[in-house]
This record gives sequence, structure tokens and C-alpha cells, in this order.
Amino acid sequence: MKRKKVVIALGGNALGKDVEEQKEAVAKTAKVIVDLSQQDLDIIITHGNGPQVGMIQDAMDNLVVMHENYKQIPLPTCVAMSQGYIGIDLQNAIKYELHRRGIEGKVSTILSQVEVDENDPAFQNPSKPIGRFMTKEEAEVNEKNGVKCIEDAGRGYRIVVASPMPKRIRELETIKTLVGAGHIVITCGGGGIPVADRNGKLEGVNAVIDKDNASSLLAQQLDADYLIILTAVEKVAINFGKENQEWLSDLTVEQARQYIAEEQFAKGSMLPKVEASIRFAESKEGRHSLITLLDKAADGIAGKTGTVIHL
Amino acid sequence: MKRKKVVIALGGNALGKDVEEQKEAVAKTAKVIVDLSQQDLDIIITHGNGPQVGMIQDAMDNLVVMHENYKQIPLPTCVAMSQGYIGIDLQNAIKYELHRRGIEGKVSTILSQVEVDENDPAFQNPSKPIGRFMTKEEAEVNEKNGVKCIEDAGRGYRIVVASPMPKRIRELETIKTLVGAGHIVITCGGGGIPVADRNGKLEGVNAVIDKDNASSLLAQQLDADYLIILTAVEKVAINFGKENQEWLSDLTVEQARQYIAEEQFAKGSMLPKVEASIRFAESKEGRHSLITLLDKAADGIAGKTGTVIHL
Repeated sequence: MKRKKVVIALGGNALGKDVEEQKEAVAKTAKVIVDLSQQDLDIIITHGNGPQVGMIQDAMDNLVVMHENYKQIPLPTCVAMSQGYIGIDLQNAIKYELHRRGIEGKVSTILSQVEVDENDPAFQNPSKPIGRFMTKEEAEVNEKNGVKCIEDAGRGYRIVVASPMPKRIRELETIKTLVGAGHIVITCGGGGIPVADRNGKLEGVNAVIDKDNASSLLAQQLDADYLIILTAVEKVAINFGKENQEWLSDLTVEQARQYIAEEQFAKGSMLPKVEASIRFAESKEGRHSLITLLDKAADGIAGKTGTVIHL
Repeated sequence: MKRKKVVIALGGNALGKDVEEQKEAVAKTAKVIVDLSQQDLDIIITHGNGPQVGMIQDAMDNLVVMHENYKQIPLPTCVAMSQGYIGIDLQNAIKYELHRRGIEGKVSTILSQVEVDENDPAFQNPSKPIGRFMTKEEAEVNEKNGVKCIEDAGRGYRIVVASPMPKRIRELETIKTLVGAGHIVITCGGGGIPVADRNGKLEGVNAVIDKDNASSLLAQQLDADYLIILTAVEKVAINFGKENQEWLSDLTVEQARQYIAEEQFAKGSMLPKVEASIRFAESKEGRHSLITLLDKAADGIAGKTGTVIHL
């Protein structure tokens, strides 16, 4: 039987909020990944980078202010930096977990660039908050410099950037080569380094790509069997938080679309996860998307829990 | 005939001093690399990261001072970040140069960790300056915090860290897989992320590895035919700067050792390059090390210029 291929999109809690938390969090994540790898599955891992890229950009922006001989570091360069250190931490944690169990296993990290369309309407309406919370005064300085900021749910001000749809994963062949050679591959960190193809030249663009959207595209292009989006709840719910709340176990693409029309899923939270899941599930018969907790990923693949979306 | 394998260690001028210079410098570097790739050679590229990792560490250290909720970022994590963004810039420049010439070619970047021995005597005597020049007052604050600094040739103070010998390239199999699949591979940036293997767990250590030493080890472990160390001069000289200065074209390992005994090569400059070259050349009959300028790499392989060191 052909080995099944699984793209796993790790949620924020799989990495922790800073370098110290990250070491602990990846150790826990590695256990789940190694459990899955023992089920004859090819595994490709993607991850977010919200707090990490925010920290790097913050540090780089401050440096330019403090030392005038330093140049501004563009956001996509910060994404590349974050892929570097998060990837290595995850890779080492998985390798150590394999070693601890006496399993021979190959793990590698592929820095990846994801192409977007510079005419994507998202560029007209930057909406994705990144980095730390700022004071109103800091936000005003940014706005004067042409950097859009928003007031974020009473917690302060944040920079917002465009979040265009991913069109093409530029390192796809490298990823395929390594998956084919038996590697667990970590890639598309932070949704990928956002780039535009300008007459054959890849150049970074000021944006962040939603990691679930990038993961959905990656799963399609790798002809995966499963896309697993790990999040903070075991299942997706309708009438969330109400008396008639109902957990969903199995959804067709059509049902999922119906619930979206009813505005059952929260914008910026569950909605994009369900949409990314739909895009993978509808792309080919037999492709299944699963939304669940990190700890429940194996049970989810076994059909015991989580929310599955399929054609 | 078996394809020849070449490890090319780029010098600092192949990358420029900041993000803007880097874009221009890598475009020039890419032309040389693509010229070489058209000679039926398998190419593996390594590079330095001195100014880049210094910038990142500086930024991260400042951030911790400014915002107490951020944690200190260790030096090996900064190396991982630098590998990420430098690798992607180099990769894109080479891909674009291939595209411009209408050549199909695969290029990839492998983040790499290089294992060192924690008992290496280098840890007792940190000697490698990193980062920007500081005032005497800044250096004193660092010294109080246990961070060793030195006064660097009248230009100010700098932090110094240990520079232990590389023992093992942990991502060797991944590199081999991609070279075998026809990729130009960029790896061991900044000499590699320095790690120690603590009971199977790879953990970063506070050090930087000399990139020429790491490149020499990589060339040996890949069973390469050539190690090319690119630098600021076309050939190595004896009696450098004196009336009887003599450029060297061809050296046996034995002759090179004799010149080292005569202290012909400058410490911290040409000496470590010659030493790294010797280690590769003496490791097996037929292995050649070449020290020359970026622009002269192709002529050097053709035996027309540069300094070749062999058994």
C-alpha cells in the first residue's frame, strides 16, 4: 500500500512565546510528531511565526534607530531569520525524540519562499497584525512613516500588513526530494517568506502569508492525503459558546460552506482554518482535512476525534 | 567520467556588509557560481556571516535591554537566523542567474549545525571578535557580565568568543541527498551553527566556527575533489609586502607546512586559510585546495592562477 502523506500545520502553542518556552514546547510537539511518524506516514510540518517574527522585526527596527550605519531590514528577511531558528529547534527536538526511542530517522528543514500575486486585493487592505503591542504615540509615528497600524481589541496598537493568498511554493521540488528520501521535512514556516516573481527574479514583499493557507497549498502540491491543522480546540463547533453549541466530527465541504454562510466561525480565528481545510479537501477526491488539538492528532487520523472535512 | 565535486567557501566580499550591499554582492557572486556550474561540477557553497551575525546579536541584545519581557537570544540562535536570510539571498541570486541564461537548475539552502567538542581548548581562550566596535564603557559592562572583550587594533572594543574546531557536520546526509539530486547546495553558513551533542541532544554553544575550517571538514566528508577558499588576493605570497615578495602557484602540503613554520602567513588572516587548505589536501591523494579571488575561481580550477595546495 502507498504510504500516506500528511501535512501538519502546528499552532502557536506548539512553539511557545519566546526562546525559552520554545525549547520546552518543541519537546512536547516532537513526541506527537514521532508518534505519527511511526504509523507509516510521510510527514511534512509547517508552523506559525507570529511572536517570533514580531520580535525579530522589533529588534531590527530598533537597531536602525540606534545606529544609523545599519539599514532597515525588510519583513520577508525577518521571516527568513525566523524560519532559520525555529526550524532548527523543531528539527533538533524531533531528532532527539527519535534518538531517545532508538529510532533511526531523518529530519530536515527547508527554508521556503511562497509566491504571491502583487495584484492580490489584500495589498490594498493590510489587515494582519504583527509584532508587539504599541502605545498610541508609537502607532502615530509609524502611521506618519506610512506604516499602517490598528487598535487591537483594547490591548494597544499593532502594525498591520497585507496577508495575500499563496500562489506557489518555490522550494516544492526540494521538499519532494527530501520527503522521497524518507525525511520528516519542516517547511513553510510562518506561511513562507512572501515573494513576488519579477521577471524571474524572486523578491521579498511586505506581507505575511497565513500559515494555514500556505499549508493547504503545500498539501495540494505534494498530493498529500491529510492536512492537519492543529489549534486550541479538539473540534470545530457551531453555535460556539451558546446553549445549543454542537461539536462537529465530520463535515462535507458543502456543509462547511453552509456554516460559513451562516457566519458560524469567528473571523481571524476558526474561519480561516475552515476555509484552508475546504480548499484542500475540495481539491481532489480522498483528501481529508482535520482540525484538532496537538495531543489528539493521532486519534484524529484514526477517526476517533477532531473535525474532518472532506468532499 | 565521474563529475568533480567542489566546495566553495565565499569570502566576506561575496556578501557585502549590509542587506542592501548583500543584494548587489550576491548578484556578482552568482555569475561566478553559475559559470562554474556549467563546467560539469557539483557545487557546494559555504559562506561567512561576521557582519550579519554581529548585527543580529546586537539587535537582539538591545531588545532585551529595552523590553524586559524579551529573553536573551543565544549566539547559535543568531547564527541560525543569519543562515536563513543569507542563504535565501544567495539562492535567489543563483536561481535568477540560471534563469537569465535559460538554464534549468536546482539550488537549495540547508541550515546546518556543526558539532564541536566542549573540551576544545578554544573555550578556555575566547579569541574571535564578533559584532560591532564598542566604547571602553560598553566593553566594561560586558566584562562585568562575564562577556570577554578585547581592544581591536585601535578601532574600539569588541566581544570575543571561542572558535573551536568543527568535528562533525550534522546535516551531512541531507546535503549529500540534494547534491546527488543535482542541486547546488548552500550550507554551513557562518561556519555552521555551533552545537554540542549532549547525550543525543544537540544544544547550541556560545562560539563561532571558522568558516574555512568548517568548509575543509565539509569537503572531506563529501569526498570533494576541490576546496576553493575565496579571499581578497589572487594568490598566497611569502615575504608578503617585502622586496623579495613571491606569489605562490603550487604548493605541496609539506612546503606549506614549512612556510607556516617560518611564520610566512598572517595570523587571523592567511594562516587559517592555509591551514584549512592543508587539512583538506592531506586527507586523501588527489584532493586539491585552491586559494584565490572570486573572479579567478574558474581560472584557478583550470590551473591558470591562484595558489593550489596538494599532497
